Amino acid sequence: MRPAISPKARNLSVDSRATGRVIRDLRELAELTSDEGGAQRMCWTDTWDSARKWLESKALELALSVSQDEAGNQWIVLPGNSESVLAIGGHLDSVANGGWLDGALNVLAGLDVLRRFAESGAKGVTLALVNWADEEGARFGRSLFGSSAATGALDIAAVRRLIDESGVALPDAVAAYGVDLDRVLESRSRLAPVKAYLELHIEQGPVLESLDLPLGVVLGTCGVRRDVLRFIGQAAHAGPTPIANRRDAGIAGARFSLALRECAIRHSGVATVGTFRLEPGLPTIVPGACELIADMRHLDRLELSAMVDEMHATALWIAKEERVSVEWRPLVSAEPMAFDETLIEICEGAARDLGVLAPRMPSGALHDATSMAAAGFPTAMIFVRSLGGLSHCAEEDSLEVDIDIAVETLHLATTRALESIAASTN
Amino acid sequence: MRPAISPKARNLSVDSRATGRVIRDLRELAELTSDEGGAQRMCWTDTWDSARKWLESKALELALSVSQDEAGNQWIVLPGNSESVLAIGGHLDSVANGGWLDGALNVLAGLDVLRRFAESGAKGVTLALVNWADEEGARFGRSLFGSSAATGALDIAAVRRLIDESGVALPDAVAAYGVDLDRVLESRSRLAPVKAYLELHIEQGPVLESLDLPLGVVLGTCGVRRDVLRFIGQAAHAGPTPIANRRDAGIAGARFSLALRECAIRHSGVATVGTFRLEPGLPTIVPGACELIADMRHLDRLELSAMVDEMHATALWIAKEERVSVEWRPLVSAEPMAFDETLIEICEGAARDLGVLAPRMPSGALHDATSMAAAGFPTAMIFVRSLGGLSHCAEEDSLEVDIDIAVETLHLATTRALESIAASTN
Repeated sequence: MRPAISPKARNLSVDSRATGRVIRDLRELAELTSDEGGAQRMCWTDTWDSARKWLESKALELALSVSQDEAGNQWIVLPGNSESVLAIGGHLDSVANGGWLDGALNVLAGLDVLRRFAESGAKGVTLALVNWADEEGARFGRSLFGSSAATGALDIAAVRRLIDESGVALPDAVAAYGVDLDRVLESRSRLAPVKAYLELHIEQGPVLESLDLPLGVVLGTCGVRRDVLRFIGQAAHAGPTPIANRRDAGIAGARFSLALRECAIRHSGVATVGTFRLEPGLPTIVPGACELIADMRHLDRLELSAMVDEMHATALWIAKEERVSVEWRPLVSAEPMAFDETLIEICEGAARDLGVLAPRMPSGALHDATSMAAAGFPTAMIFVRSLGGLSHCAEEDSLEVDIDIAVETLHLATTRALESIAASTN
Repeated sequence: MRPAISPKARNLSVDSRATGRVIRDLRELAELTSDEGGAQRMCWTDTWDSARKWLESKALELALSVSQDEAGNQWIVLPGNSESVLAIGGHLDSVANGGWLDGALNVLAGLDVLRRFAESGAKGVTLALVNWADEEGARFGRSLFGSSAATGALDIAAVRRLIDESGVALPDAVAAYGVDLDRVLESRSRLAPVKAYLELHIEQGPVLESLDLPLGVVLGTCGVRRDVLRFIGQAAHAGPTPIANRRDAGIAGARFSLALRECAIRHSGVATVGTFRLEPGLPTIVPGACELIADMRHLDRLELSAMVDEMHATALWIAKEERVSVEWRPLVSAEPMAFDETLIEICEGAARDLGVLAPRMPSGALHDATSMAAAGFPTAMIFVRSLGGLSHCAEEDSLEVDIDIAVETLHLATTRALESIAASTN
C-alpha cells in the first residue's frame, strides 16, 4: 500500500481530537451490522433499521435533532440562526455482503462535521446531515429511492409494482419502516431551504490509486444508457451444421461485445457487457438467440449520444453480416449531471490548503448527489481513494490516513461553503 | 421445397406396395406418442414404453420374434438358415418436444425391410432390427446408453450416479422397464454373430439440402472434444472503472468464441460455443469470470487434435492480453470413428442404381452406429435430407419422396450386404 500525502497544517485548524474518530464510528457500525460475508444493511430490513437507530443515538448524544421524512430519509440537524441549509448526504444502507465504507463513510464523516460545529458553538447557516433511504436499491432494484423521492423524481407508479425475491411488494416493505408510498413526495419540503449539498464517497474505481493520490473532486456523474440487445439467429445442431450454414446469435453477441469496448475507448467513455445469455444455452446447440445488456457511460451528453448511435449502427451491421436479426430495447437512460463550479472550487481549494492535490474526475456511478444536482441544488462530491478499486464487497477498503484527510477536507469545504452561503444571503 | 430426384427403376425391384408404408407407420407412431409440443418418447418413460409395445405388436403381426436384451434394447429378428446376422438399428426414444423422424425413421424403415424379406420367404443370413434404448440421453444426459452397453463401452459406475431433474436415480428408472443396471453388459452376447450394421438417419444438418440431393452416405462420425474454459479476471463496477484498468473475463470469452470459429474454418471442421456464462452476470458489473463450453469436431483425428492445441494456445494468449487467467477442463472426448469401406460402397451403389447420387459426408453428430463402429463391427449409415437442417424439434421434417427413396436404398443395400456376408461365410 502506498503512503498517503500528509496534510500540511499551514495555519489551518486540524482537530487532532477528531483524528480516527470517524474510523472508530465506522468500525462500531460494521461490528453491529456485518457478518462474515460483509455489511448486511440492505434497506428496508431490520439490520438497516438497527443502523439508523444507532446513528440516532449518536446524534442525540450530541444534542442534535433527529427526524425521518416521508420517504424514510433520516435528517440530523444542527440549527443555525439562518433559514438557509447546507446539507451533507450519505446512506447507511448497503448491498448484501457489502463493504464498511460505501455510504456509511459519508454519513459518519458528516456526523463528525456536525459534531465539530456543535462543539465550536458557532451559529450561522443551518447544517443538516441526511441519511438517504435505499441508495443501493439492493432489495427492489430501484436505486436512489430516498433522494429521488425528496427531489420529486421518483415514479411512484413504477416502484409500486416492484417485488423482492421473496414476493414482498415494495409498498408493504417500506410501510414496515414508517413510510407511506403515497406520501413519499411530501419529503420535498425538507429540501426547500437547501442552498448547497456536499457528499463524500469512496471512489469505487482504480483511478486515484493509479495516480497515487488520496482524494479527487467530482465534476459530475456520467450519463448512462443501458440497453437490452437481442440477436436472433437459428438454433441448430453443433455437429451436423457447417460453419458456413450457421446463423449463430452468440457469435453476433461476441462481436458486439468487442465492438462496444472499442467504441468506449474511441470516445474516452466506459461501456460494459455484464449480462450475456445464450439460448438454448446447451453445449451442442448453435445459439438461436443471444440477449445481452450494454451499459454505456459518458460525462458528455453528445459523446454518450454518439456512442449509442454508433453501437446501434454496429449492431445492425453485425446482424447483417451474421445473417441474424437484432432487437434493441432501452432499459435505463440518465443524463450526465454536472456539479456546481463554485462548490467544486471550494472542495479543490480545501484539499489544496490541507496539502493534497485532488484532481477533477467524473463519477461513472450514480450517487444521491446526482438526484440533488438534477433537481438544481448546487452540489459537489469528494472522492476518497479505494484500495484495488474494489467496492460492494467485504474487501472494500481505504487507507485510514486517506479517510482522515477526507474528513478534514469535508470539514474545511463545509466551513467555506457555509461562509459562501452566508455571504450570498446577506 | 425442391423436388427430390426420382428413382429410376432400371430393372431393380422397387416394391410399389411399400411406397408410403413407412410414412404411414411413422404417422401412426407420432399420433400415439406426440402432443402439440412434438414427440415425447423420452427413454425410460411410459410414452416411450408405449412406443415399444406398439412396435412389438407390428412385429408380431409379421410373425417376427421380439425380445428385450439386458440393456433394454428391443430386438426384432427374422431368422435365417445361417448363424450370421445383419443388424439394422434405430431408436424409438426422442428428446422432449422432438420430431417425428429422428430415430423412429431408422426403426420403421428397418421394420419395412424385414417385412419385405419375410414376405419374400427367402432364407439366408439372419436379419435383425434393433431398437436401441436411450440413444438421446434426454432424461439422464447419457446418450447412446443401449448401444454402449451392448458393445461393452458403458461405464456402469458413472451412469449409476446419474439423477434426473426430479431426483430419480438412473438405476431405479431403468429397473421400472425391466433393466437391471448390474447386468446390462450381458447384452453383449446379442452382438456376437453380427457381421454388419446399417443405420438410416435424418441428416440433422443443411448440407444435403444445400446440395439439392436427397441422400448421403456417411463416412464416419466426427471426433468430438468438448471442453470447459473458465476465464478469471476481476469483477469491478462498470461506472468507475476505466477500460484500461479492467480485467474483463467476458471480453476474453468473446474473443475466444470468435477465434474458435476461425479455427474451425481453417481446419474445415466445426466448433461451437453454445454455453457462455458471465459472473456475477449483472449489467453494472464488469464480469469477474466467464465460463464457456467449446465443442470441437472433426472427422480426422490429427486435425481435431490440432484444433484443440491451437485453441489451447489461443486461450492462453487471449488471457495474457486481457490480464486474466484461464482454466481448461476436458468434458467429453470421442475419437473419430470411420465406417466400413465395403458397406459404404454398397450403400453408394444401391443409391446410384436407384438413380440417386448420394455424396459421401461426415456425420457431425454421434449415433448408435458410432458405438458399433467403435466396437469393430463393419458399419455404414445413410443420411436423408433434413428440411431446413432442423431436428430435435416439432418442425423436424423430410420430404416424403426422400423418405421413400431412402427406404428403397436401405432395402437394396441390405440385400447386397446379405449377399456379401453369405459369400464371405461360405
